[in-house]
Amino acid sequence: MKLDFDTIKTLLKPAETKIVLLVLDGLGGLPREHQGMTELEAANTPNLDDLAARGMTGLHLPVGHGITPGSGPAHLALFGYEPLRFEAGRGVLSAVGLEFDLQPGDVAARGNFCTVDEQGRITDRRAGRISTMRNRELCGVLRTIKIPGAEIFVETEKEHRFLLVLRDDNLSSSVSNTDPQVTGGMPLAATPLSPEASQTAAIVRQFVDEARTVLERRQPANMVLLRGFSQRPDWPKMGDVFGLKAAAIAAYPMYRGVAKLVGMEALETGEQLDEQIDVLSRRWGDFDFFYVHFKKPDAAGEDGDFDRKIAAIEEFDRELPRVLELNPDVVIVTGDHSTPALMKYHSWHPVPVVMWSKYCRPDSVARFGERACMAGCLGSQFPAVQLMPLALANAQRLKKFGA
Amino acid sequence: MKLDFDTIKTLLKPAETKIVLLVLDGLGGLPREHQGMTELEAANTPNLDDLAARGMTGLHLPVGHGITPGSGPAHLALFGYEPLRFEAGRGVLSAVGLEFDLQPGDVAARGNFCTVDEQGRITDRRAGRISTMRNRELCGVLRTIKIPGAEIFVETEKEHRFLLVLRDDNLSSSVSNTDPQVTGGMPLAATPLSPEASQTAAIVRQFVDEARTVLERRQPANMVLLRGFSQRPDWPKMGDVFGLKAAAIAAYPMYRGVAKLVGMEALETGEQLDEQIDVLSRRWGDFDFFYVHFKKPDAAGEDGDFDRKIAAIEEFDRELPRVLELNPDVVIVTGDHSTPALMKYHSWHPVPVVMWSKYCRPDSVARFGERACMAGCLGSQFPAVQLMPLALANAQRLKKFGA
Repeated sequence: MKLDFDTIKTLLKPAETKIVLLVLDGLGGLPREHQGMTELEAANTPNLDDLAARGMTGLHLPVGHGITPGSGPAHLALFGYEPLRFEAGRGVLSAVGLEFDLQPGDVAARGNFCTVDEQGRITDRRAGRISTMRNRELCGVLRTIKIPGAEIFVETEKEHRFLLVLRDDNLSSSVSNTDPQVTGGMPLAATPLSPEASQTAAIVRQFVDEARTVLERRQPANMVLLRGFSQRPDWPKMGDVFGLKAAAIAAYPMYRGVAKLVGMEALETGEQLDEQIDVLSRRWGDFDFFYVHFKKPDAAGEDGDFDRKIAAIEEFDRELPRVLELNPDVVIVTGDHSTPALMKYHSWHPVPVVMWSKYCRPDSVARFGERACMAGCLGSQFPAVQLMPLALANAQRLKKFGA
Repeated sequence: MKLDFDTIKTLLKPAETKIVLLVLDGLGGLPREHQGMTELEAANTPNLDDLAARGMTGLHLPVGHGITPGSGPAHLALFGYEPLRFEAGRGVLSAVGLEFDLQPGDVAARGNFCTVDEQGRITDRRAGRISTMRNRELCGVLRTIKIPGAEIFVETEKEHRFLLVLRDDNLSSSVSNTDPQVTGGMPLAATPLSPEASQTAAIVRQFVDEARTVLERRQPANMVLLRGFSQRPDWPKMGDVFGLKAAAIAAYPMYRGVAKLVGMEALETGEQLDEQIDVLSRRWGDFDFFYVHFKKPDAAGEDGDFDRKIAAIEEFDRELPRVLELNPDVVIVTGDHSTPALMKYHSWHPVPVVMWSKYCRPDSVARFGERACMAGCLGSQFPAVQLMPLALANAQRLKKFGA
């Protein structure tokens, strides 16, 4: 049974309590060898183990069985937003990842530099994965394109990827992709998917035509492909749906951006975990809810570096007491998804989670690890989106339902 | 959170991996006596236990809590088709069970031979459960009925049950049952439930009138009742929704038929398990997904023969290594439903399941049995319909969801 936002809103009651959500990106893992331990199981984590012994444990399922989540959907689930319902377009996610300040009405698209042959057929959808440096030069070239009817922004993402943003009063994102997603075909003409998008589609076609011209001699990046036209979603904010004044302490733009989409304030912070905890301490009085994002375990997992992932988890464990000394009412430690070093990529595996409050009912688990948490009271496939209501309850922020 | 087919389709990616689903029909059981063991727990299953130790275990719920599934819905769930949504009519299931090759547009109905008194009132809805032999004779009699406007097929099922199929270009299955489902009443007149069914209803009424005439002196089977008028459903095929070229290695028509409804190819096979594994080996290169159906545990359970069910499970365990030697990427061993020998019937109890892949995260379970699997990472009430997405993930056939 899932509670929707409307039901939760009717149950909210004011409280002075504070909730801290500590996210170790890519926390979940897999055994390095047959019958071996996972990264988390192999790590020396006395503080996490103590929290597990005092709290509720389990593994959460970010999106669904077998689904490998991107960082966006995985975080939305942790923030209490059903990721299959709150889906941002690819263009918006690109903007979010660059912390580009999308305005209401802006239309964003994910762009690829690509290679076309003399007939205009796509021979490489990624232009040989040109360097990010080269991308910056070419974005400079694209910025020379001026089209009456819209302000145009072009921003480098990485390698062959860039962000296109169109700004005007009457734009619509109901425009078809120009990226056919296969090689051998021609780039598609942008067409309006609804009547009010005809002007926007015309602007996109004109942009693409001019891009073809200005890139003509710049092989391998001699053309662009666009997809995921989308506008900044107007989602309910955490303040409204959960009654929480919420802050994000994340260094990377993607996570800051997703947090802002749900109404969090993204605080200035350094990239190191101890700097992030400094920010947490300093701003402790200003918010009800803090989301702290720790990137290192995921980065190590993506590199396939089992030992560096262990070291990252142990670094977190050493900092954890500083968080607990602030006396939060509810503490959640988990990951947004799994990134097993064995797979060097995000994966679908459920993610260990521990939640502690003065009012939690402890289970028998006394070790924070994948297999230990399978026996926890939250179960081995707890829907991640349900963590927030449970945290609100533990923070004494929900009234009784019914008489 | 359940993913619909449309979402899964957007995540499919091509792969060379192979998935094997091994179904022990009626696998789940109950202890023979207080504090005793179930059939599976009592069986000597070293190979299944080893697979459990290396894989993910749990118990799946075929349809829902407390719901005893028929073979059709139970298998649809294992194939990833929500059984409450994909419901075939009773006529279609009868056709499927006989492996009658229903054409698009054919209307099928389940028929009962029944007994009526001189006033035409039903005194026995099953005509004293006449023998299947007698049923064959009577179907021969019914086949003499010719009606302009439709080709008619009559096929013996078992005892008092037969299949009626009407074939013509403009038939509709929106026809009411003639079976009132109670004794003492009169057979009902078939009536159209929508305007386009009036011709079909007229054909059915004429068939029933003529059946009354030709059966008049053949007591106890002196009349017929029809229900479940239905047409072959046009469901999405496994190739489309899961990107799998799928084969069924099942000897019995019911299981072959259900597999064909979801787009599997039903391979020729003998009835014995070792013959089925021979087929699996021989056709290994031709498909991505294999469903192997082993009937014996269910048959023993229905007979209330606890020891024969143990023997059937042990027979399966002896053959399992031959499957594993083929090096499948994902192996699933489970049942479609429980058939406790104690109950001599299908039951609602969750069904043990083990799934192994190179990328599965093992749990602490090292024994394949009902109680052991309750501690498995899939949980003790895993929705059966979610096994397929999880298998696709383990076969590396799903892309990341969202950025």
